[in-house]
Amino acid sequence: MVNPYFSRDVLSMKDFDRGDLDLLFQYSDKIAGLEYKERASLGTGRTLGIMFFEPSTRTRLSFESAMAAIGGTSVGFSETRTTSLEKGESFADTVRVVEANCDAIVLRHPMEGAARFAAEISSKPVISGGTGTEEHPTQAMLDLYTIMKEKGRIDGLRIGIVGDLKYGRTVYSLIYGLSKFNVSIDLVSPPLLRIRKEATHDFGTSGRANSIEIREHDSIEEVLPELDVLYMTRIQRERFPDEQEYEKVKGSYFIDSRQVERMKRDAIIMHPLPRTDEIRHDVDSTFNARYFKQMQYGRTLRAALLSLILNP
Amino acid sequence: MVNPYFSRDVLSMKDFDRGDLDLLFQYSDKIAGLEYKERASLGTGRTLGIMFFEPSTRTRLSFESAMAAIGGTSVGFSETRTTSLEKGESFADTVRVVEANCDAIVLRHPMEGAARFAAEISSKPVISGGTGTEEHPTQAMLDLYTIMKEKGRIDGLRIGIVGDLKYGRTVYSLIYGLSKFNVSIDLVSPPLLRIRKEATHDFGTSGRANSIEIREHDSIEEVLPELDVLYMTRIQRERFPDEQEYEKVKGSYFIDSRQVERMKRDAIIMHPLPRTDEIRHDVDSTFNARYFKQMQYGRTLRAALLSLILNP
Amino acid sequence: MVNPYFSRDVLSMKDFDRGDLDLLFQYSDKIAGLEYKERASLGTGRTLGIMFFEPSTRTRLSFESAMAAIGGTSVGFSETRTTSLEKGESFADTVRVVEANCDAIVLRHPMEGAARFAAEISSKPVISGGTGTEEHPTQAMLDLYTIMKEKGRIDGLRIGIVGDLKYGRTVYSLIYGLSKFNVSIDLVSPPLLRIRKEATHDFGTSGRANSIEIREHDSIEEVLPELDVLYMTRIQRERFPDEQEYEKVKGSYFIDSRQVERMKRDAIIMHPLPRTDEIRHDVDSTFNARYFKQMQYGRTLRAALLSLILNP
Repeated sequence: MVNPYFSRDVLSMKDFDRGDLDLLFQYSDKIAGLEYKERASLGTGRTLGIMFFEPSTRTRLSFESAMAAIGGTSVGFSETRTTSLEKGESFADTVRVVEANCDAIVLRHPMEGAARFAAEISSKPVISGGTGTEEHPTQAMLDLYTIMKEKGRIDGLRIGIVGDLKYGRTVYSLIYGLSKFNVSIDLVSPPLLRIRKEATHDFGTSGRANSIEIREHDSIEEVLPELDVLYMTRIQRERFPDEQEYEKVKGSYFIDSRQVERMKRDAIIMHPLPRTDEIRHDVDSTFNARYFKQMQYGRTLRAALLSLILNP
Repeated sequence: MVNPYFSRDVLSMKDFDRGDLDLLFQYSDKIAGLEYKERASLGTGRTLGIMFFEPSTRTRLSFESAMAAIGGTSVGFSETRTTSLEKGESFADTVRVVEANCDAIVLRHPMEGAARFAAEISSKPVISGGTGTEEHPTQAMLDLYTIMKEKGRIDGLRIGIVGDLKYGRTVYSLIYGLSKFNVSIDLVSPPLLRIRKEATHDFGTSGRANSIEIREHDSIEEVLPELDVLYMTRIQRERFPDEQEYEKVKGSYFIDSRQVERMKRDAIIMHPLPRTDEIRHDVDSTFNARYFKQMQYGRTLRAALLSLILNP
Repeated sequence: MVNPYFSRDVLSMKDFDRGDLDLLFQYSDKIAGLEYKERASLGTGRTLGIMFFEPSTRTRLSFESAMAAIGGTSVGFSETRTTSLEKGESFADTVRVVEANCDAIVLRHPMEGAARFAAEISSKPVISGGTGTEEHPTQAMLDLYTIMKEKGRIDGLRIGIVGDLKYGRTVYSLIYGLSKFNVSIDLVSPPLLRIRKEATHDFGTSGRANSIEIREHDSIEEVLPELDVLYMTRIQRERFPDEQEYEKVKGSYFIDSRQVERMKRDAIIMHPLPRTDEIRHDVDSTFNARYFKQMQYGRTLRAALLSLILNP
């Protein structure tokens, strides 16, 4: 097997083709089947550098736990307050400091392009853990892996993505990832939060090997009964430049157990978490809920990804 | 050996009988005697999820160090500021996030019942690291283990517990633990800080297989010469609803080297730490001081407990 | 081989002779050549206690990464806010708490003598990670190792040390370390920031086995063409009692690529990091820059040092 991930940066879902993703999913399956000790031998003595300039419980925990699962260690920081940035150190120097002390870096940053910039500086592979409003590629990888595991396939599915499509970086990575498959995508958002055109502008072009349909909707009602996958997202207050805009759309796009009854019986509901009100708590106990299982797949997938990046 | 700890929650000392405790102490002795590498093979590839909603140096360090000693890794958070709770995530969802990323959880929380609630949600075992004013079971386990190691037995001892008996959660767990043995307990506190009746109400009932005597005192003086174990506790400012109440009792209950001379020569002095003034620093160098050794036993005991919980 | 580091405190460069340093450098070379798994077997099951009472990204990361490289785990804290010091615990008790939970301690503290005091209390070896304005011995060890690796030797070199020589603790450790070799040292600083006489007072005494020359300068210009090693340091605002004093000297002592051209072709430029303006960014791409490589040597050297301290 040629390992296309070895020593490679993970910055955008655009950089990974379908073969790359298939291999990652197969390797995730393999990792999941290993005994603890066997899995823990994959990253023994390796160090993951954590550079989180934005708070995050889930993504940080998932990476640290995945690194631990393969026997490695995470070092770094998850806030800027205790770092040397306070002593006037440049971002580039901080990247070099972390790079000197690890075998791979995972970086989360509020600014667009921060991960790509870090990757240019660092000789060690850089994984984006979410930057600005642009991408969160490993989230998309685990989203796709969840669909594959829970639906048995991605091709041929109808997938609804609901919520803040303008500022939600997970959405962009997910759409770039889905675009490698033959899928039908329904985008549901308030007009104010429509997806940015950069994400979908080339979907209609003729050169594609696969077929994607994409439609935009104002209301969740009209597509609900047709979906195989409902992907809900949080409307993030911190992404809004303006509090008033936030108040207008907050709470318009949610799902509860009554609405779940209108869905296909085997449809699944996903969410990148954390959720607030957009998935009501009575949905948790439905057959369709997969957002917590999705997080478990995330640990496995990230353990697989880290192992592939660190080992030739 | 049947392992009664495997995959089990540790929420209250009431849930563990004398046989369970004996087995835990024996296994702690065994762990203590292992070579580093042998011990480190017990938890290889395992992850402990740390959820500390209250600050704690000792308990967190002890669990992380114990997990490291068996070769495992700790992930999580020890303050709420950097977690998703700030993004409006519910406590239940945060538990599920951590659960998905670990093999066992240790939780500290200012509210009563938080660990039990987490245990109901989580499919992974939950260990209470102290919740509200109710319990701190692993502290009691290590307290009992310390007595066993330093006095050779627990049965037949006379044990004084001094300080804030109303709000101190370690005291409750200790009393529940001691109640499995044949002991004589002297509770010393200001009237304002007497133990809550829930802790001792069934000690006089006739069905018990073992014998416990329990007495309450206002002053440390009257019992000091009789004790085999003196267990001091801090009067915690943060447990008081009212600053004035705190000032009234602060400093009334302490021990210094002059008082130690009035104790039995082989009596031992314990404390869950951190201490402030209640054990004066001139006690540290007496033969009787065991509060730092107690902490070392804590690491061993928690390593044993984690190993038993994680391995069938 | 007799290992002079086993169970030993690392508090001052004065405590290590040339033979000790040679052995450390040889062992660092050996560590660097090991496979990941082999290196990770040196500290399996061992725990390093991190006690950082001052913020530090580099030193903390370097120690944690070094400990991970030898297969061990770091536990502790890197700020006082979440520790029991807030509950009124004494520094001595906090040392004992950490000591009970680890196999060695690394301590950073704003006060002089804090590491030595901790070492007196702790039965586990204590490594100073920088205390007050006095010393930062492991920084000096890695500085010397960097010179050895990049220049092939230390004896016979002319070494310029530039910047804040009064308050910079790395400078003192470096000078104590260099004093074991036959070197010529040029100290460049504003008169206000001259080195404290305690550092160099015995360099002229006749009993020394080696020869050291030491000179002081006001300007970097006069010595630049003669140097084999240029060691730049940051003028640290936080070391100044007075903001006005800081503003006077800030920016007087820097190097840029134009100045690098005046240096020997094979001279190397070092810096303990973080830097601000004292090394301009156009120097990074010159042949002479070694400050990032220096940090990589630091990880290796600290892994070697920890392994020697932990294993007989």
